[in-house]
Amino acid sequence: MSVRKRSQKTGLPPGTLVHVGEKRTEKVRVELFSYDETSFEEKDVHDLNEAFPHADRQGVTWINIHGVHDTNIIEAIGRQFNLHPLTLEDILNPNQRPKVEDFSGYLFVVLKMLYFVDKEIASEQVGLIIGRNYVISFQEDGADVFNPIREQIRTNKGRLRRMGADYLAYALIDSVVDNYFVVLENVSETVDLLEDAVTDNPAPRTLQTIHFLRRQLIMLRKSVWPLREVINHLQHEESEFIKENTRIYLRDVYDHTIQVIDSVETLRDTLSGMLDVYLSSVSNRLNQIMKVLTIIATIFMPLTFLAGVYGMNFKNMPELSKTWGYPAVLALMAGVAGCMVYYFKRKKWF
Amino acid sequence: MSVRKRSQKTGLPPGTLVHVGEKRTEKVRVELFSYDETSFEEKDVHDLNEAFPHADRQGVTWINIHGVHDTNIIEAIGRQFNLHPLTLEDILNPNQRPKVEDFSGYLFVVLKMLYFVDKEIASEQVGLIIGRNYVISFQEDGADVFNPIREQIRTNKGRLRRMGADYLAYALIDSVVDNYFVVLENVSETVDLLEDAVTDNPAPRTLQTIHFLRRQLIMLRKSVWPLREVINHLQHEESEFIKENTRIYLRDVYDHTIQVIDSVETLRDTLSGMLDVYLSSVSNRLNQIMKVLTIIATIFMPLTFLAGVYGMNFKNMPELSKTWGYPAVLALMAGVAGCMVYYFKRKKWF
Amino acid sequence: MSVRKRSQKTGLPPGTLVHVGEKRTEKVRVELFSYDETSFEEKDVHDLNEAFPHADRQGVTWINIHGVHDTNIIEAIGRQFNLHPLTLEDILNPNQRPKVEDFSGYLFVVLKMLYFVDKEIASEQVGLIIGRNYVISFQEDGADVFNPIREQIRTNKGRLRRMGADYLAYALIDSVVDNYFVVLENVSETVDLLEDAVTDNPAPRTLQTIHFLRRQLIMLRKSVWPLREVINHLQHEESEFIKENTRIYLRDVYDHTIQVIDSVETLRDTLSGMLDVYLSSVSNRLNQIMKVLTIIATIFMPLTFLAGVYGMNFKNMPELSKTWGYPAVLALMAGVAGCMVYYFKRKKWF
Amino acid sequence: MSVRKRSQKTGLPPGTLVHVGEKRTEKVRVELFSYDETSFEEKDVHDLNEAFPHADRQGVTWINIHGVHDTNIIEAIGRQFNLHPLTLEDILNPNQRPKVEDFSGYLFVVLKMLYFVDKEIASEQVGLIIGRNYVISFQEDGADVFNPIREQIRTNKGRLRRMGADYLAYALIDSVVDNYFVVLENVSETVDLLEDAVTDNPAPRTLQTIHFLRRQLIMLRKSVWPLREVINHLQHEESEFIKENTRIYLRDVYDHTIQVIDSVETLRDTLSGMLDVYLSSVSNRLNQIMKVLTIIATIFMPLTFLAGVYGMNFKNMPELSKTWGYPAVLALMAGVAGCMVYYFKRKKWF
Amino acid sequence: MSVRKRSQKTGLPPGTLVHVGEKRTEKVRVELFSYDETSFEEKDVHDLNEAFPHADRQGVTWINIHGVHDTNIIEAIGRQFNLHPLTLEDILNPNQRPKVEDFSGYLFVVLKMLYFVDKEIASEQVGLIIGRNYVISFQEDGADVFNPIREQIRTNKGRLRRMGADYLAYALIDSVVDNYFVVLENVSETVDLLEDAVTDNPAPRTLQTIHFLRRQLIMLRKSVWPLREVINHLQHEESEFIKENTRIYLRDVYDHTIQVIDSVETLRDTLSGMLDVYLSSVSNRLNQIMKVLTIIATIFMPLTFLAGVYGMNFKNMPELSKTWGYPAVLALMAGVAGCMVYYFKRKKWF
Repeated sequence: MSVRKRSQKTGLPPGTLVHVGEKRTEKVRVELFSYDETSFEEKDVHDLNEAFPHADRQGVTWINIHGVHDTNIIEAIGRQFNLHPLTLEDILNPNQRPKVEDFSGYLFVVLKMLYFVDKEIASEQVGLIIGRNYVISFQEDGADVFNPIREQIRTNKGRLRRMGADYLAYALIDSVVDNYFVVLENVSETVDLLEDAVTDNPAPRTLQTIHFLRRQLIMLRKSVWPLREVINHLQHEESEFIKENTRIYLRDVYDHTIQVIDSVETLRDTLSGMLDVYLSSVSNRLNQIMKVLTIIATIFMPLTFLAGVYGMNFKNMPELSKTWGYPAVLALMAGVAGCMVYYFKRKKWF
Repeated sequence: MSVRKRSQKTGLPPGTLVHVGEKRTEKVRVELFSYDETSFEEKDVHDLNEAFPHADRQGVTWINIHGVHDTNIIEAIGRQFNLHPLTLEDILNPNQRPKVEDFSGYLFVVLKMLYFVDKEIASEQVGLIIGRNYVISFQEDGADVFNPIREQIRTNKGRLRRMGADYLAYALIDSVVDNYFVVLENVSETVDLLEDAVTDNPAPRTLQTIHFLRRQLIMLRKSVWPLREVINHLQHEESEFIKENTRIYLRDVYDHTIQVIDSVETLRDTLSGMLDVYLSSVSNRLNQIMKVLTIIATIFMPLTFLAGVYGMNFKNMPELSKTWGYPAVLALMAGVAGCMVYYFKRKKWF
Repeated sequence: MSVRKRSQKTGLPPGTLVHVGEKRTEKVRVELFSYDETSFEEKDVHDLNEAFPHADRQGVTWINIHGVHDTNIIEAIGRQFNLHPLTLEDILNPNQRPKVEDFSGYLFVVLKMLYFVDKEIASEQVGLIIGRNYVISFQEDGADVFNPIREQIRTNKGRLRRMGADYLAYALIDSVVDNYFVVLENVSETVDLLEDAVTDNPAPRTLQTIHFLRRQLIMLRKSVWPLREVINHLQHEESEFIKENTRIYLRDVYDHTIQVIDSVETLRDTLSGMLDVYLSSVSNRLNQIMKVLTIIATIFMPLTFLAGVYGMNFKNMPELSKTWGYPAVLALMAGVAGCMVYYFKRKKWF
Repeated sequence: MSVRKRSQKTGLPPGTLVHVGEKRTEKVRVELFSYDETSFEEKDVHDLNEAFPHADRQGVTWINIHGVHDTNIIEAIGRQFNLHPLTLEDILNPNQRPKVEDFSGYLFVVLKMLYFVDKEIASEQVGLIIGRNYVISFQEDGADVFNPIREQIRTNKGRLRRMGADYLAYALIDSVVDNYFVVLENVSETVDLLEDAVTDNPAPRTLQTIHFLRRQLIMLRKSVWPLREVINHLQHEESEFIKENTRIYLRDVYDHTIQVIDSVETLRDTLSGMLDVYLSSVSNRLNQIMKVLTIIATIFMPLTFLAGVYGMNFKNMPELSKTWGYPAVLALMAGVAGCMVYYFKRKKWF
Repeated sequence: MSVRKRSQKTGLPPGTLVHVGEKRTEKVRVELFSYDETSFEEKDVHDLNEAFPHADRQGVTWINIHGVHDTNIIEAIGRQFNLHPLTLEDILNPNQRPKVEDFSGYLFVVLKMLYFVDKEIASEQVGLIIGRNYVISFQEDGADVFNPIREQIRTNKGRLRRMGADYLAYALIDSVVDNYFVVLENVSETVDLLEDAVTDNPAPRTLQTIHFLRRQLIMLRKSVWPLREVINHLQHEESEFIKENTRIYLRDVYDHTIQVIDSVETLRDTLSGMLDVYLSSVSNRLNQIMKVLTIIATIFMPLTFLAGVYGMNFKNMPELSKTWGYPAVLALMAGVAGCMVYYFKRKKWF
């Protein structure tokens, strides 16, 4: 899908602001949190100019934008916070890889938020602008994993209110990564269910499910692998926006991404093992079918031949007129069939 | 194909100018753009000497050469701009890998432009000479993705006219990379169409299409992988020809190449999954065929045998003369057939 | 399984202490060893405050916690030894990868202890806090490989009592790694037993065992690979907690982990070889079955046809009334059958 | 092959001069070129002492030895030019990997020259001693790709006569690498021919050709991969024997080796795709065979059964005496056969 | 096997000297060579104390221990030469990976000596202690590749007597590596023999031989890969025990290990190609079998049906009483059979 939409930008000068995702019409919602250790303010911003004074305030300001389809809003924010045109372009294009970029005045981070829609993993881009005392987050859509953070700001639980903008950014990234575990569990359960199906009833649909799950895992992996590098960069680079005591928390998220990658690799291994088992079950089934055919043919072909012999119309067939002829032939037939059955038993064919 | 033509140069001293590609006869067209922020000039150059004074002008000069089969023109340009013989040799040989080379006085970049000809990806080499205030681009052929850039020069849209030769070079590279997305979308659509064919009707042709697509993707990958290194080099090396504020744009193209590589890898994964599904469908089909055979054989062999028994010509077969003999045997036959059908039903064979 | 439980923490602020493993209710046992070269003390601690003065004592103090499901105890220890909230969180979550983390005041090491439960490898997390003169070890459960170390402390055998806390940490890690060899031998024996089964009697169960073993090895590998990096880090980083003369011992454990990895890779290679042999045995068996069918069909079909011919009811079939007709046909049939048998013999079909 | 001969040296002290290749008896030919920009001399050397004064001359001396089976000559050269015993040993042993070694006084380079003998790639070792003003090249045998270089010396075409010994060494390496393209083209053509054979007529011989080609490509790769490192080393190491302005030419050869590697990898990919197609063609063929069998069996088994029924000898079979009995049964048979044919048509079996 | 024995050490404190290999009872033989350029002494040492004064002598002392099962001897040597307990432990445990370790006062090197026992590669550990003027070598068993070195010492052939202990160590390593070529040749010959068997007569035994050889190569590889790093370390590390002029010889052994690795990889590639050919041969054989069956069935089923028709007992079958009926039916049958044969000929089935 990401391949699909990109080409509509071909030929435009770089920095042209065009929204590349699906067209949407609903109004963009701009949420504003502004807090320090002692106080906090939360509101929905309708006039953008209203939001900006907050940026210069003491404490931390978090502006969360629901929807990136309104280029006017993005442009207004860009002007206000001095964002580079390429940053704005990337925010509008939901087909970015997770990445971190240093610009003068802010860090720009791109993440993928994953969630389930109709048993399929859906992916949504989250853009973060990390400034000295503010964080701006851009979400494409309704799916939202930031509620626990809103709650922590409101209730002043945990250390969020006592820390700076870098810790808020960490908390946002952490909640995105935490959600990967939910997605992983879902996939993992489907894999477990599949495991029994593979050996008991290897239908062609099983194979398709295996491949569907593999593609899902590839998608997960594509979101997590570059994220690992992103967090590593945030953790190790000398950057004025990430303070020393936040790095230890970033190391923790880093560990989580590694755990996700580990689980994805293990699930991929399990799936390719299941593929082997599936293919081998199909082969075994063929063997079963051929055994049935062979047993039947091997028993009845000689018998039919015998019956054929005594169905011949030769004048001179002395056996035919003997009284014991018929029972003798029947006994012979039973004997032949018995030998065959014995032979197959010994070969453990049934 | 690239393997084919190279050998005609074997044994010539290095730096000998021989055009290695397909022979062509049409006249080489030389296009000249010369611009700064306030003015621009565009013309087709017929006498090469006419083109060169421009190189010393203020502002940026872009010389675009359509066709590299006229060694005289290449040599004339080489003399005028002081190009190294190996650079000229590489321009004439369209089988280069994408690369960047520092020479004293200029940077030499080789790219691959990709486009579709008859549903196949075709590749064309683009050579770029990046000097302090000029860019010379060499194209093999008619296919051209540089039109949007000409338009930007003419209409002064975007920042192109305000920036130097390095930004022009970036814009040229960017338009080549942007075009990869168009190619990718095409391949991606064919893959999607194939996906249904694989399970529904796994014909040998399907397999050939899978392998054809795989080769196409390998071709794409061969163009993009080294390009990634090229752009990385341009972005990070200390070079006098790439200014600081252009590097941020190169980072953007770099991201695009990574996205292309990502998509190529995903498509390759999808294709190898489809190969598995195809091979398994073929196996399943064999199982289906064998089931039909086995069912038929297993039902009719015992029946034919029974008929054979009562076709024997023994004198002493008391059943034959009974009035109920015939209907009884028919009933027996129906019974045997019924048992078999029941057995197969229970085994879920149909 | 590790995938399963993680999500219950989603949405909680980082550093919240929640036990993520299986719920347990038995009382947590806290064991305390305190020793120097000349004396040692061993006791079970019931009141935690009783344990802490030991931390400031001369010599080395080892606190071993059996069970991490009581968050109160973990919190008390955290307060006493100044442990970072993220360390406590990791101790409570048994789904960590092996890792080492430098905190100010201590090193935190996570390991996986492996052992057999019902012929399956079970894994249990061991957390180590390495301070200047103390080691705190956290175990999830009953399985315990630290007995030899307790014995060395009690009997003053080896150099343990003469060395510092870093050597104790080394000894604990070493006993965990040593136990991997026991697990490996078990797996290795099962593989050897399987080897014969694969060629002699390739049942579908064999395949499942192969895949079961493969998953076991993946589990082992997941515990050992990161451990290698952990030990490498301990050995090479400049850390105040690991003294120079202990590093040589860490190099030894490092060698052991490499040996374990080597053996795991060899066993994996062996298993994938067995998979090939298994699949090929299934194919061979199909060939055997088809040979039997083909031999029977090829011998009896012509014979049955011959019998059919002389069972036709034409008036004018002169052979039928000849005295030699019947024996001649029987001889012909024997001849045909003989030819077929000869043909199959020459083709080495049986 | 390379494996075979090596063992005859086992147990000898290192530096013992033994020729390890095939035994040969013809006289070794020693060719001498001595040139500078204005003059050149060419002769066959019969008395080795005659050759050595040249080494001290102005300009460049190239000594080319045809055959390494005469240890006396090698030893004499070794004494004259102060070559290390290990260098001499390597020259005599044609089973070296391509490599470059710095010795005090000279560089020692080992290459593999490839050419075709009876449609198989043959490999011959070329050793180069690169001194300050001389190059000594050792060839095993008759195959010779150095003629263009002799021609350049004689006719003073290109820049060879104007440059030093390092450029001569470059030219020799370049002609060896250029020849790889000739070999590649040959292999590439065979692959193209095979491509059609694979789908049209998948004989077991096709499979053997695929594997033969794969082995050929492995051989090519084994010659080129280490060569890449060799040239990279020559290009980047600080060595007194390679001058700055020659390095740009070495970069060019380096690019060529990368192109060869690229082509080899592409051909390998193509071959493994062909293997898949081949195996799948074999499976498809089996399906075709089984379809024929199943169609025949499914049509004739019921018919034969029907015929059998009316061949039974029951007294009481009323149909037998009806005038319409025979035509009715024939019609029934035609109907059954028709149904079957219709069924197979609908299943698209033919 | 290496997996088996290791666990008997589990739980012992590190540095405890226990012999881990197979138990043996014969007396350990201690061989002593002591030489400089002008003189040499060789003797079997019976009283160990007798051996040690030599260690302080001028010139080089080589102590070669045949058998590591006598822990007393190992301990005595350890005391005399100040060896670290971990070194002694490693000498006693024959399941080490090849490695090199720097200890203060000596270098410790572990190698694997390979040789053939009953057509299987057997492996034996060789430990080397390299001191300033002595080398101590530990062998497990009888197999011995050091004879050529003894000969060089005795006869003063080559440069061995003129060089130091480091050159002796090099010579010992070189003779171990040289022996790998002998082993490789053996394997290589078996592979060549197998190559014909695979296509001509693909028995299940062939498959087992392929896998046996693969395991042998894995074993070889496990010995050589780490050895490469060992020699690289010896060659490049700044160590007081390896002199500058010996490094050039180590580079030579390094090249040999690379050649061994190359050959092993090539043989592995060949074997996996053979596996493909084998599996494909099995499939082809199945196709052959099915063709025979199908041809027979397709010819005789219609014929048998025809015979069945004229074996029916209908009163009203006019053909039966015609004189030409019988020959006409026979002709019809011949015609049907002919058509079938023609059909199969055209399909190239035989």
